Amino acid sequence: MHDVIVIGGGLAGLTSAMACAQYGLNTIVISRRIGGSINETPIVETLPGIRPIFGPDLAKKLQEECKSAGVEFRESEISEIRSGFTLYNIADHANEKHKAKAIIIATGRSPQMLEIAGEEEFLGKGITTNPISDLETLQNNSVAVYGSGERAGLTALWLSSMCQKVHLICPKPRLHVTPLTNERIQKTLRIETHLNSAVKKISGSINLESVATEKAQMNVSGLVLCERGRPHLSFLKVNMQISDGIAVDSAMKTSAKGIFACGNVLSGEEVLAPETVMQAWQAAESAYKFVRGK
Amino acid sequence: MHDVIVIGGGLAGLTSAMACAQYGLNTIVISRRIGGSINETPIVETLPGIRPIFGPDLAKKLQEECKSAGVEFRESEISEIRSGFTLYNIADHANEKHKAKAIIIATGRSPQMLEIAGEEEFLGKGITTNPISDLETLQNNSVAVYGSGERAGLTALWLSSMCQKVHLICPKPRLHVTPLTNERIQKTLRIETHLNSAVKKISGSINLESVATEKAQMNVSGLVLCERGRPHLSFLKVNMQISDGIAVDSAMKTSAKGIFACGNVLSGEEVLAPETVMQAWQAAESAYKFVRGK
Repeated sequence: MHDVIVIGGGLAGLTSAMACAQYGLNTIVISRRIGGSINETPIVETLPGIRPIFGPDLAKKLQEECKSAGVEFRESEISEIRSGFTLYNIADHANEKHKAKAIIIATGRSPQMLEIAGEEEFLGKGITTNPISDLETLQNNSVAVYGSGERAGLTALWLSSMCQKVHLICPKPRLHVTPLTNERIQKTLRIETHLNSAVKKISGSINLESVATEKAQMNVSGLVLCERGRPHLSFLKVNMQISDGIAVDSAMKTSAKGIFACGNVLSGEEVLAPETVMQAWQAAESAYKFVRGK
Repeated sequence: MHDVIVIGGGLAGLTSAMACAQYGLNTIVISRRIGGSINETPIVETLPGIRPIFGPDLAKKLQEECKSAGVEFRESEISEIRSGFTLYNIADHANEKHKAKAIIIATGRSPQMLEIAGEEEFLGKGITTNPISDLETLQNNSVAVYGSGERAGLTALWLSSMCQKVHLICPKPRLHVTPLTNERIQKTLRIETHLNSAVKKISGSINLESVATEKAQMNVSGLVLCERGRPHLSFLKVNMQISDGIAVDSAMKTSAKGIFACGNVLSGEEVLAPETVMQAWQAAESAYKFVRGK
C-alpha cells in the first residue's frame, strides 16, 4: 500500500511525485509513458536554471530526481479507480491492483484527433502527435502543424529551423499563445499561419503527401497534431466534479475526498510550465496534509 | 537607453530579466549584489530539474543564463527612480544615470534587524544575515536562528547538520513554514524551537557568546537573522501604492504606469521559489506588452 499514487508522468506528475517524496510520503507514479508530453516537447525555456532544455532530456532529469528521492515507477495504464472507505483502489491494464490513501491525477491531455477520413491510415506515415520521434519524416520537407495553443506554436517554431516551410493550421480565429511565441511566429518567414482553418482532407499514396483546408491545399510530408484535446477520465469510477477537465480549488483539491489534481488535466486554459510546477507542489502539500490527517 | 531595467538580482530579478531577454527586450539588471538572497540560501529544493542545489550555485547558473541571453549587469545600488513623461530615469550610487521604458522591481527584502544594544558591535562577529559566508563561525558550535518563516526554517535545518545545537527563536506564536519544513524541524532533535520569543540581550567579549530571550539564555557562537523585514523602497520617487510591500494586480502591474514588480518586495505573504518564477515570467510579459504598446 502506498501513501500516494500519482497518475501521469509528465511535468505535473513528476514534480508532484518528487514533492510527495520530499514530504516523506511513500509514493508511486503510474504512467502509460514516463515523461508524458514532455517527451513530445522540443524545448522547454521557462524553467530557470535548466533552460533551454530538450524535452526528453528534462523528462529523464525529472525521473532521476524522483528515483533518488525514493519514488517508485510503474509503466502501465490505469483501468479503474474506485473508492474504498478511506482508501482508493486502482487497477491497471496489467491487472495489478494498487491501494493508496491519496491520489494525485496528472494525466494531462492527448492531442485532439482530426476525425476525418484517412487519419488512421496515415498515422505514423506522416501524421503524428510526436514531432521528436517522427523527426525523420518531417525534417527538410514542408510540414503542417495543427493547433491553436502554446504547444502548437512552439512546435511550429522548432520545426521552422529544419523544415522548408511550416504551415500552422489554427482552428480558432487567433493563436492562443504567449506574446513571446506570437512575436517569434510573426518574425519567422518560413511559418505561414492559416487562421480559422480546419483540416478537411488528407491524401497521399503510401505516405502523407498533402493536406487541405477549406481555403488552401498544401503539399506536406508531415502533419503534427497539437490541438489540445479533452482529458481521458473514463477510468474514474468516483464521483467528481468535471467540466471539460477536473475542477479543483486553489489547494488543488477535487470534489472527491483524498483526490487531488494538477496540470493540463484541470478544467480551464492550457497550463504552462511555471504554473504547472506551482500546482504540482500545491497538490503534494494537500496530499500530505490529507494523508497525515492535518 | 534600455527597454527594461530590472532592479534586484535575486531569483525574481534574474528570472524576469531572462524572460525579458527572451522577449527581445534590451534588458539590464542593476543590483547591489547579483544573486541577492539566493546567495544566502543554503539549499533550493523546489525547482524541478536542478534540485537540490546550493543557493550560490543557483545564482551563478541564473546569471550565466541571463548573460547568454544578452542581459547586461551593473553591480550598483539604485539611489533614485523618477518618472519622465514616458520614460523612467534611474540614478545609482556610482552616479550613473540609466533610462528605460519600463522597470521591474524585484529588490526583495533584507532581514529585519533586532535593534537592540550590541547588535552593531557583533555584526560580523557572530551576528550575520548570511549563514553561508559566515559558516566558519557557525559550524561545530551551538547557534541561534532568529525568524518565523521558510527562510528561518530552512536555515535552521541546514545548520542542524553541522552544528551541535540550533536554537530557532521565533517571534510569532507559530512557525510560518511549509508543512514539509515544519515536519522536518519537528523530527530534528538538534533544533530547539522557542516560540513567541524575542531576542532581548546579546553578549560576549570580542565575539558573540550568548543570546537571551525573556524565558531562556543560550550560549551560542552565532546568531543568524532570518526574519523577513520591510522592503527598502525609499529610492522610489514615483507615486505608487505601497502597503508593507508593493501592491500589484495579477499581471504584476503596480499602480505606476510602466512599473512592474515581483517576488518578496510585494505586499503579502513570503513568496516561495515556484511562485516567484511564475510571477517573474508574468512581470516580463507585462513589461513586454507595455514596451511594445500591446
